[in-house]
Amino acid sequence: MSLPKSKVAAVQTAPVFLDPTATTDKACALIREAAQNGATLVAFPEVFIAGYPYWNWLVTPIEGSAWFERLYKSSISMNGPEVEALCATARETNCTVVIGCNERGGPGVGTIYNTNLIISDKGELIGRHRKLVPTWAEKLTWAYGDGSSLKVYDTSVGPLGTLACGENTNTLARFALLSQGELVHVANYIALPVAPESYNMAEAIRIRAAAHSFEGKLFTLVSCSTISEQIIVEMERINPKSRELLSRKSSAFSGIIGPDGSAIGSPLIDDEGIVYADIDLNNCIQPKQMHDITGSYNRFDIFNLTVNRASLSPTSFTDHTVPSGGDDPL
Amino acid sequence: MSLPKSKVAAVQTAPVFLDPTATTDKACALIREAAQNGATLVAFPEVFIAGYPYWNWLVTPIEGSAWFERLYKSSISMNGPEVEALCATARETNCTVVIGCNERGGPGVGTIYNTNLIISDKGELIGRHRKLVPTWAEKLTWAYGDGSSLKVYDTSVGPLGTLACGENTNTLARFALLSQGELVHVANYIALPVAPESYNMAEAIRIRAAAHSFEGKLFTLVSCSTISEQIIVEMERINPKSRELLSRKSSAFSGIIGPDGSAIGSPLIDDEGIVYADIDLNNCIQPKQMHDITGSYNRFDIFNLTVNRASLSPTSFTDHTVPSGGDDPL
Amino acid sequence: MSLPKSKVAAVQTAPVFLDPTATTDKACALIREAAQNGATLVAFPEVFIAGYPYWNWLVTPIEGSAWFERLYKSSISMNGPEVEALCATARETNCTVVIGCNERGGPGVGTIYNTNLIISDKGELIGRHRKLVPTWAEKLTWAYGDGSSLKVYDTSVGPLGTLACGENTNTLARFALLSQGELVHVANYIALPVAPESYNMAEAIRIRAAAHSFEGKLFTLVSCSTISEQIIVEMERINPKSRELLSRKSSAFSGIIGPDGSAIGSPLIDDEGIVYADIDLNNCIQPKQMHDITGSYNRFDIFNLTVNRASLSPTSFTDHTVPSGGDDPL
Amino acid sequence: MSLPKSKVAAVQTAPVFLDPTATTDKACALIREAAQNGATLVAFPEVFIAGYPYWNWLVTPIEGSAWFERLYKSSISMNGPEVEALCATARETNCTVVIGCNERGGPGVGTIYNTNLIISDKGELIGRHRKLVPTWAEKLTWAYGDGSSLKVYDTSVGPLGTLACGENTNTLARFALLSQGELVHVANYIALPVAPESYNMAEAIRIRAAAHSFEGKLFTLVSCSTISEQIIVEMERINPKSRELLSRKSSAFSGIIGPDGSAIGSPLIDDEGIVYADIDLNNCIQPKQMHDITGSYNRFDIFNLTVNRASLSPTSFTDHTVPSGGDDPL
Amino acid sequence: MSLPKSKVAAVQTAPVFLDPTATTDKACALIREAAQNGATLVAFPEVFIAGYPYWNWLVTPIEGSAWFERLYKSSISMNGPEVEALCATARETNCTVVIGCNERGGPGVGTIYNTNLIISDKGELIGRHRKLVPTWAEKLTWAYGDGSSLKVYDTSVGPLGTLACGENTNTLARFALLSQGELVHVANYIALPVAPESYNMAEAIRIRAAAHSFEGKLFTLVSCSTISEQIIVEMERINPKSRELLSRKSSAFSGIIGPDGSAIGSPLIDDEGIVYADIDLNNCIQPKQMHDITGSYNRFDIFNLTVNRASLSPTSFTDHTVPSGGDDPL
Amino acid sequence: MSLPKSKVAAVQTAPVFLDPTATTDKACALIREAAQNGATLVAFPEVFIAGYPYWNWLVTPIEGSAWFERLYKSSISMNGPEVEALCATARETNCTVVIGCNERGGPGVGTIYNTNLIISDKGELIGRHRKLVPTWAEKLTWAYGDGSSLKVYDTSVGPLGTLACGENTNTLARFALLSQGELVHVANYIALPVAPESYNMAEAIRIRAAAHSFEGKLFTLVSCSTISEQIIVEMERINPKSRELLSRKSSAFSGIIGPDGSAIGSPLIDDEGIVYADIDLNNCIQPKQMHDITGSYNRFDIFNLTVNRASLSPTSFTDHTVPSGGDDPL
Repeated sequence: MSLPKSKVAAVQTAPVFLDPTATTDKACALIREAAQNGATLVAFPEVFIAGYPYWNWLVTPIEGSAWFERLYKSSISMNGPEVEALCATARETNCTVVIGCNERGGPGVGTIYNTNLIISDKGELIGRHRKLVPTWAEKLTWAYGDGSSLKVYDTSVGPLGTLACGENTNTLARFALLSQGELVHVANYIALPVAPESYNMAEAIRIRAAAHSFEGKLFTLVSCSTISEQIIVEMERINPKSRELLSRKSSAFSGIIGPDGSAIGSPLIDDEGIVYADIDLNNCIQPKQMHDITGSYNRFDIFNLTVNRASLSPTSFTDHTVPSGGDDPL
Repeated sequence: MSLPKSKVAAVQTAPVFLDPTATTDKACALIREAAQNGATLVAFPEVFIAGYPYWNWLVTPIEGSAWFERLYKSSISMNGPEVEALCATARETNCTVVIGCNERGGPGVGTIYNTNLIISDKGELIGRHRKLVPTWAEKLTWAYGDGSSLKVYDTSVGPLGTLACGENTNTLARFALLSQGELVHVANYIALPVAPESYNMAEAIRIRAAAHSFEGKLFTLVSCSTISEQIIVEMERINPKSRELLSRKSSAFSGIIGPDGSAIGSPLIDDEGIVYADIDLNNCIQPKQMHDITGSYNRFDIFNLTVNRASLSPTSFTDHTVPSGGDDPL
Repeated sequence: MSLPKSKVAAVQTAPVFLDPTATTDKACALIREAAQNGATLVAFPEVFIAGYPYWNWLVTPIEGSAWFERLYKSSISMNGPEVEALCATARETNCTVVIGCNERGGPGVGTIYNTNLIISDKGELIGRHRKLVPTWAEKLTWAYGDGSSLKVYDTSVGPLGTLACGENTNTLARFALLSQGELVHVANYIALPVAPESYNMAEAIRIRAAAHSFEGKLFTLVSCSTISEQIIVEMERINPKSRELLSRKSSAFSGIIGPDGSAIGSPLIDDEGIVYADIDLNNCIQPKQMHDITGSYNRFDIFNLTVNRASLSPTSFTDHTVPSGGDDPL
Repeated sequence: MSLPKSKVAAVQTAPVFLDPTATTDKACALIREAAQNGATLVAFPEVFIAGYPYWNWLVTPIEGSAWFERLYKSSISMNGPEVEALCATARETNCTVVIGCNERGGPGVGTIYNTNLIISDKGELIGRHRKLVPTWAEKLTWAYGDGSSLKVYDTSVGPLGTLACGENTNTLARFALLSQGELVHVANYIALPVAPESYNMAEAIRIRAAAHSFEGKLFTLVSCSTISEQIIVEMERINPKSRELLSRKSSAFSGIIGPDGSAIGSPLIDDEGIVYADIDLNNCIQPKQMHDITGSYNRFDIFNLTVNRASLSPTSFTDHTVPSGGDDPL
Repeated sequence: MSLPKSKVAAVQTAPVFLDPTATTDKACALIREAAQNGATLVAFPEVFIAGYPYWNWLVTPIEGSAWFERLYKSSISMNGPEVEALCATARETNCTVVIGCNERGGPGVGTIYNTNLIISDKGELIGRHRKLVPTWAEKLTWAYGDGSSLKVYDTSVGPLGTLACGENTNTLARFALLSQGELVHVANYIALPVAPESYNMAEAIRIRAAAHSFEGKLFTLVSCSTISEQIIVEMERINPKSRELLSRKSSAFSGIIGPDGSAIGSPLIDDEGIVYADIDLNNCIQPKQMHDITGSYNRFDIFNLTVNRASLSPTSFTDHTVPSGGDDPL
Repeated sequence: MSLPKSKVAAVQTAPVFLDPTATTDKACALIREAAQNGATLVAFPEVFIAGYPYWNWLVTPIEGSAWFERLYKSSISMNGPEVEALCATARETNCTVVIGCNERGGPGVGTIYNTNLIISDKGELIGRHRKLVPTWAEKLTWAYGDGSSLKVYDTSVGPLGTLACGENTNTLARFALLSQGELVHVANYIALPVAPESYNMAEAIRIRAAAHSFEGKLFTLVSCSTISEQIIVEMERINPKSRELLSRKSSAFSGIIGPDGSAIGSPLIDDEGIVYADIDLNNCIQPKQMHDITGSYNRFDIFNLTVNRASLSPTSFTDHTVPSGGDDPL
């Protein structure tokens, strides 16, 4: 018995803002580049397709309302061409891909989810995780996901889980993944220079990734988006201070963290690029002697976490029709 | 991604009382008129083909009994000439049509349903909704429908649902449609001046249409029948006060209501005619930021509605015959 | 839309005991007589062709054994001359005919069914109903039928169903017919003076016919056989008390019952003859306002009856040859 | 092993119209009288406490509307003084009691059920059956019951079931009781002279009781109310023809029917009084040799009746609260 | 792996006619006697508790009717004292017991089954087989069982199945047991001298036992009742020829048959007693080389037998009640 | 049986902004004034104690951050002096009181709920409803409530329920109250002139109150706050357009709506004051004849709403010690 060793890649870049087709093309090109460099897992930022609703932080809710409609119309559906293109590229390159998107939900119109897709190296969409609670101003845009996607997937690079942005702050959500045997965690983010000035986003990302790797004795890939000139120009149209607010340093962090909580190689801070690392899951074994929090280092006679993974929907329809022998003409 | 814009029409007029052939002719002529004025959806009143059992409100049940037989014999079946004519006209004019009728049910004789037909612009009968619970005196005439028709249909004017008259009071029936993504709702009625004098029918119709539009952030077409001189004369034969009772004002309301609950253009109160409106389903998106009751503005961890859409029938026959090798002579 | 009006006839007489040819001739003559009197439906007694196994009630099973063979040999098959003659007479007279017979079943020898034939006014054998459960002593003779014949047939006098004798006691068998829209029911019987003395056969027949008519709001034709001198003489050979036992009064009842459960005209009790009645199926409509047990006066959310109408046979042979794709050399 | 023998009583009289207290007093006095005469089971009419909504048949629905409120306010609740008094009298006299009432339902106001109470000889309310479907004009007043009360109760006079009025027409409801081993059936009714003139109520009651007794080989008690001068006077206030309409003969029938479908002793037609009979359940055994429709004379490989006895309610609340350790101040 | 060896016992005697208590006592004494002689399986005759309805063969059905009631009242129920006593004795003696009885069925009264009980050596009632089709005159008494009891039970003497009397003629019923791995078969009978004179009951029993043992390569225990003087005297009361009819020789056969179809030791013909045999299930192995009809000597590509083991009942009740939050006072 | 009649009062005024003590004093004074005018139920606006977070609509989230802390510090706890004062005043005046507040939640700091308090006329805090989903920009401030407070309370003015602001749009939350027998509904709001300009807040309030009253056939009290000069001045400090934005007309509506959906007396639009009405719950009965959506006008075989009223908390601690049965030696 031996655990997989892989080369993995975390992308730090900006989407083509609110253009899902062009951003998908960019993502596919980056997958191919990473694969040519030997990577078999590529992680992309939160809502990479096709951008983050910065307006929520820059104008009042009413002023941002038309942007809500624009985001809704540029969000993607699970059976649309964007997912199809990503799956085809994953299959073509034999890469596992984790990527964030704005997902158009249903029933009815006007529901958007902040969703992470998990695509296998066979090109199949094996998971769709909708962010459980949007963070602060994000609540103006996204609906809440349910527990149905709190899953660890069996991939060619090992058992893999993912949480989006602030979810990596949620102790219980993280433990729900660890308790399914997670060994590779993808935490993706967006650059958030518009947060309170005292907030160092890059450091806030690093702290959480280090803690998750250390607690779970596993590898964490962090992928964070950056803010492009296009985004700044668009936002300046609605708030003249946008350039200043969106240019603060130490706002984005991407990299790979090992089971001891320290970075493997050099993470990217603010700059665009792809971070690579060779990860050997066999290195997750020995540290469990010290802290095996889902096994010998815990007390489940004391702690009992229940996770409701039921899928929630507005209405459940029972459509089973008893076969009729009567003269029902329709 | 963009949602449809359409011109829609709501008819307010009287049927040719208890004459399904003549009423069908009238309906087809009105579809053609509305189509010539640009409409692609035409909504007709409840049980328009061929009239409402007013006698239930005007005489005692025993006195009304012979009228029950007359109504039964003038009710229509789904594979009869009336439905065929309506479908042909819908196909000819490329109009989606929603129209009420008295449906002759089965098995056996003597069962009548209050039924709304949904006909596509290709001329296909895509839905048949039987009113779930007849209202008060109507229980003397109609059988109860089942849940099998609580459906939203994919039409060329958008996802469309319909409920008849008092069903629009039923909170749960309305939510069952909303939760299927309904964006165009047809609520049809009959003029009810015979209700308690304190009951303002036109206002009672408006309240419900406004609420459904406001809660669901969608467009509601209201189509209500009027009471013709023919109906009054027929009813005077059995109750001399019929003219007085059937002539009360504010008894009929037809119009189109937008996602904020207010009327688009001028509704018709009591008068005959066709109300037209241009509806743009894209206007249903932004209001969802405030109240998305089938998405982000509800709590499906708390509320769990199950809708039994099974079709009910008196007996289910299993007719599958095991192939016989014996010498069965029949 | 209007329902048929017909003159119908119920025959009360005795067969030529265990002589199918003579009994068929008698039946054809009676059909012609009834037709000349205007009838378009003629109902005959249970196992009219050619007689009832009274020995089951008069001697012990071993003593009755030779009579079993005699009955088997005088029973008829569906493609034999008796059915052909009946069909020809039905066609000739434009009468719908329901008649009981002893049917020689298969495979193999020695299986007899108590069978009702339904013959259309076009002279086609449209149905064959084998009694589901023989009653008490009859179990010594007849095999059980299956559910395949629980059908209502579309005839020129309206939707018609039939049950034999004690089957009219079976609540579920009766409902199975009602739920197919039955409007004309034929219940046929044999005179049973040999039943326990406290048993009033004529009244027991009337109770069931009245109940079926009342519950279903339909017309029931009751046709019952009488006991001829020939039968008495034959049975006296095996049990000297036969004359006394077979002569008890109030043992046969034939007549026509309307939708309110009361007889139309005068039924025949014990005497031979033909009872006629004019039946107007339109009279089945108004009573449905009160009790429509297959529609508005039932609760199919509560009651769900399933009827297995599969045809049962000892063995199912799959005779078709799997198509061969290549050149099979053997 | 031996089955019980009992003296049973069926009451035919009128309530004190819309006065539940006085009618309860009258019922208790009648129970005591019957007990003194040796009865251990007393059956009362449908909605005996405290009267039938005759206005539904005599005036139009709107005219009857104030009477609806009056009936609602005079209807009783299961934990009110009327039920308490009936239970005390049953206990005191060691009588099993079946009695109909107008039951005030919930939640909210304005819901009335036509309910039969079953009270044991220990004075416990062991059953409450709400009529499944009100009949014709009754639909103007009563809500529909659910299947939860389709039960046969173990009483000191034997296994007992009950159906109200028109329910005794419902083939499937009757079979649902038979299939629970019912041996004593209580069918209660109200006098209905206001039905169509061709409708002989007394005969319609008898047909159904005879059929149920005959099919099930059991004893049926029929208890029917009469129409008092008080009721006529009250109804004359709203319809001057009431006296004529409410005085038609052959409108009420009470009596006891044996397993062969014939009456034991003399039933009461129209007149007030108490009918008594000695019933010996051992007499239910031998007739099963002929027709045991819940056993050897049926075919459950063909007929499969499912009865949904779930209790229906508008909303199901899950109130179980996870014990909280937090500082919840309320 | 080795198969069990056991000493087994087949009882041939008469019950105390229609006295279940005394017959149970007799059965328990016989179990103790057999156990003291080393037996670990004791087989008793068909309907041993408490006797066979000989009257069906000796008088006409109506004359036998009072006997039906008497048999019904002396039949036993599964939770009565007779089964309890048998189980206690089996536990006390560590014997597996197979014994026939008249079982009082439900719902309602008047249904009797011909039932074989299978009791483990731990004293548990592990099986109850109701005879599928009563034979000829027996149909006057017993209802039909369903397929639910076509089972082979895991007992301490090996996999054991049982069929009653004429069921051992049913090729398919026997194969249904063989195909569950039956190695010990109990076939129980009653003496039937009243059958046609040409019928040699003892030989008819032996033929069937030999065939089943030979086809299945297993051991068959045959236990048959005898006719006591008490039975003859009782039957003489209703038919004076009873002594003659019930005294015919070669009417009863009990014994043990080995896998080659021949008797082990000396069977009992007509005489009372207990037949013992040592059976070694290892002897069932080698003969399978020649005929393994449930394995290598069959063609399940050609033969496909389906056995419906569903339990049939008149009505299925769904009682699951949704928890209610409303104010339902009962 | 008779239902209560009461004089009720709905307050439309502004709080003393972010000053819970002064606002409580103001509320107590208003309760006394209403009581002196005969009212026995007084309804106050949403978060009346002590004001609505208008900044969420007027500045960006980061700019509003300090106001969050200010609101948290001025929110009240259930066992604080404000609740005590309100309860004392309710007791003193024998008034039932419903009033909104910012509730300081737990555990830990920084959690605020939008809470409605229900205080009985005995001065007891009988209910605490936390708004389930804050609306749009409100999500920046308030946490989500759970289902535990979806209750109807038994008060001296009748069964009373309450929902805050946008919750009155939630079809399912409304039905959850109706299905508990609600007859008096309190819907409270805040003036929202900062909503999109096309949004007519007063009309949006009226539509929902009319619909709830009409669907449920009950009385709705609407109480809405106004915007004081103090609030405008405070908000102008952070957004200079605040005066203009906060002064839009048709932003507040208070009044009492009857069971037919129309206002009783004159509602207040934008102006301060107290609206009084005499309500007679007996008027809720007759309209149920037409639409009893929690009873006879619904179909609970089709619609099954489950409401999870469990109280949610971050962690459940099991503090009780397992009782020890023996002498535990350690």
